[in-house]
Amino acid sequence: MKKTPFVTNDKIHEIIKEFPTPFHLYDEKGIRENCKAVKEAFAWNPGYREYFAVKALPNPFILKIFQEYGFGCDCASETELMMAKALDFKPEEIMFSSNDTPAEEFKYASDLGAIVNFDDITHISFFEKAVGKFPKTACCRYNPGGVYEISNGIMDNPGDSKYGMTKAQLFEAYKMLKSKGVENFGIHSFLVSNTVTNDYYPTLARTLFELAVELQKDTGCHIGFINLSGGVGIAYRPDQTPNDIRAIGEGVRRAYEEILVPAGMGDIAIYTEMGRFMTGPYGCLVTTAIHEKNIYKNYIGVDACAVDLMRPAMYGAYHHITVMGKENEECDHMYDITGSLCENNDKFAIDRMLPRIDMGDVLVIHDTGAHGYSMGYNYNGKLKSKEVLLKEDGSAQLIRRAETPKDYFVTFDCFDILKF
Amino acid sequence: MKKTPFVTNDKIHEIIKEFPTPFHLYDEKGIRENCKAVKEAFAWNPGYREYFAVKALPNPFILKIFQEYGFGCDCASETELMMAKALDFKPEEIMFSSNDTPAEEFKYASDLGAIVNFDDITHISFFEKAVGKFPKTACCRYNPGGVYEISNGIMDNPGDSKYGMTKAQLFEAYKMLKSKGVENFGIHSFLVSNTVTNDYYPTLARTLFELAVELQKDTGCHIGFINLSGGVGIAYRPDQTPNDIRAIGEGVRRAYEEILVPAGMGDIAIYTEMGRFMTGPYGCLVTTAIHEKNIYKNYIGVDACAVDLMRPAMYGAYHHITVMGKENEECDHMYDITGSLCENNDKFAIDRMLPRIDMGDVLVIHDTGAHGYSMGYNYNGKLKSKEVLLKEDGSAQLIRRAETPKDYFVTFDCFDILKF
Repeated sequence: MKKTPFVTNDKIHEIIKEFPTPFHLYDEKGIRENCKAVKEAFAWNPGYREYFAVKALPNPFILKIFQEYGFGCDCASETELMMAKALDFKPEEIMFSSNDTPAEEFKYASDLGAIVNFDDITHISFFEKAVGKFPKTACCRYNPGGVYEISNGIMDNPGDSKYGMTKAQLFEAYKMLKSKGVENFGIHSFLVSNTVTNDYYPTLARTLFELAVELQKDTGCHIGFINLSGGVGIAYRPDQTPNDIRAIGEGVRRAYEEILVPAGMGDIAIYTEMGRFMTGPYGCLVTTAIHEKNIYKNYIGVDACAVDLMRPAMYGAYHHITVMGKENEECDHMYDITGSLCENNDKFAIDRMLPRIDMGDVLVIHDTGAHGYSMGYNYNGKLKSKEVLLKEDGSAQLIRRAETPKDYFVTFDCFDILKF
Repeated sequence: MKKTPFVTNDKIHEIIKEFPTPFHLYDEKGIRENCKAVKEAFAWNPGYREYFAVKALPNPFILKIFQEYGFGCDCASETELMMAKALDFKPEEIMFSSNDTPAEEFKYASDLGAIVNFDDITHISFFEKAVGKFPKTACCRYNPGGVYEISNGIMDNPGDSKYGMTKAQLFEAYKMLKSKGVENFGIHSFLVSNTVTNDYYPTLARTLFELAVELQKDTGCHIGFINLSGGVGIAYRPDQTPNDIRAIGEGVRRAYEEILVPAGMGDIAIYTEMGRFMTGPYGCLVTTAIHEKNIYKNYIGVDACAVDLMRPAMYGAYHHITVMGKENEECDHMYDITGSLCENNDKFAIDRMLPRIDMGDVLVIHDTGAHGYSMGYNYNGKLKSKEVLLKEDGSAQLIRRAETPKDYFVTFDCFDILKF
């Protein structure tokens, strides 16, 4: 499938006049349409709620959009919880899904009344020591272990991941929590990141629904919700078929009606913690070609770098690139597209076929709406760029300012050593 | 070789009383002894100067130590240049080695009088346009291309790296710069990162010395210095033999006397831009075991995470770990040592044999003195920890404070959206 930017060449040049490159641009219209599709896909479940995985795009302006659809926040740390609180998310709209959790974060989550998702059985006594009491509602994270078949030939290996409890531990955890006063239970499981198959959620749901029936029977605990967590991916590559959230919701519904309804558990709410699927395709990194270098290979140097988008450097991840204004030109030039870090993995693309690039050309690096800005670092002393929202009315709004040298040096502000 | 922390168990507990974990600890004594060894190793060359690669450990307190030994700064960005200026490094002590360089950084480096190291031939006209004039001294970066044999069986592949110019371009660049008024020239080359062989610098030196003779003959340019750049590595693993800087310096001297002296070029200064070798082994990440998790594997969760040290997550890099107070106990337990990120690569060690770890045990993660703190990010909204210097007199000094939520949210300070 041809990948097309959500912004036209004219519009991008209009925006660049106000906000010089580099910056991440987000598409409000795309985000809202996707929100509606997600809500519709799970409308069959009255208790359904998406808790947006804040780590994917921790920007308050974006979280406010999700709030309009009744979505909540999936938080992994104290600052993410702080942001949820500052934006007036209600306690039941805040999920605290963390692992290797510090005591003070459990305390803070508890103070907010967030739903705590226990990653390990030992976290129950740890939480008790840190907080002193248990909430009425709690969730436990399950790891089925071994190798797990999602669909024909698509496997993953949760047994090698650090998350969740074994089945035996889960049963024990429920009993412990019940004995400590918890009345309403959830099950959570995260098996694999960025699946591009409509089968992942339905397959996981089936596993968790069967588990829920067993758990309720064995422990007598009331299961209030099942949290399918994240893992619904996006089509980074042109040859991938994007997930169809309607088909995914329908697949979960079928499993629900086959397993939960007959067991008299048709009141269970379905929760999701999607991040990438909610914002990934609705963000792009806008950057300008500033150097062309021809040595043993041909390089185009741009004004963004791995500081703005680390996925290619860290995972070798593919991000599609469009040279704006040359969308219909032949891709007959092979380039490495590089940033300026003194770090050879600072390449947005390697051996990529693109139209001939001239200095000053604007490049759109696709699908940076999730785990883009949020994974940025300051290596080489480079500063992170700004975030801009392309609003539904076509105007552009700054939603995060660029870093300044003052920000970079802020952790020396209590010393006299640096005088500028 | 057994790897031993530079700090005793008693001392670390004394420091932790004042500075709770996690933090990076640096060893002033070790840094100073190494500085002396480096100076001695190249004392045969009157013009020798080490320009510390700031990106490895961009802390002003550390740079001040290097300043005492007459060392300079190798800067890769505007903020690194700003730090060098704020610390009163002299212009000739500042090397600006960057690639894909923005115009404003060339301008700033030129304003400071820093030595500019041109990465590409096209950067000459780019620099001229940005700055308007050329300095008397300039350096060009060379990439020999292809596959390069360092020593018996140790190869690298500079032809695949984005740095430097081809030989033909280098000759042309010298002529262009000469025609624009440059009088004093340098050659720079970086071929490979973290070599653990005493042969790397001598082999590279031989290549660059022969090139210098040819360049001077062909272009008539006066070669004032040869910059061997970085690449001298450290022994992360216990089975590696650390580099011997004396042997390295001696190897470079031999090449110098065989090639440069007979060519009448015995006045050339040798520069180095070592980072990892200068600070890597003299830093460690000090962290406390806070969770033990036994599912399909055994995990120890600590209070540091990839935010403090990304090398294992990004490169699968090995960092040795010592469980303090258990240095002589048998390593009969296999653990994954994990941080708290919701990111399965947040593991400091995988399947590592260690003594039995109890909650509260202090772990020292070795060799974090270079590319440790400086590669940190804020993924999951996690905050970077502090830096502490273990001084020669045995006292501990805070040399960077920990990040706070206020720092994390600073790029929203011009908006009204977040009210805490």
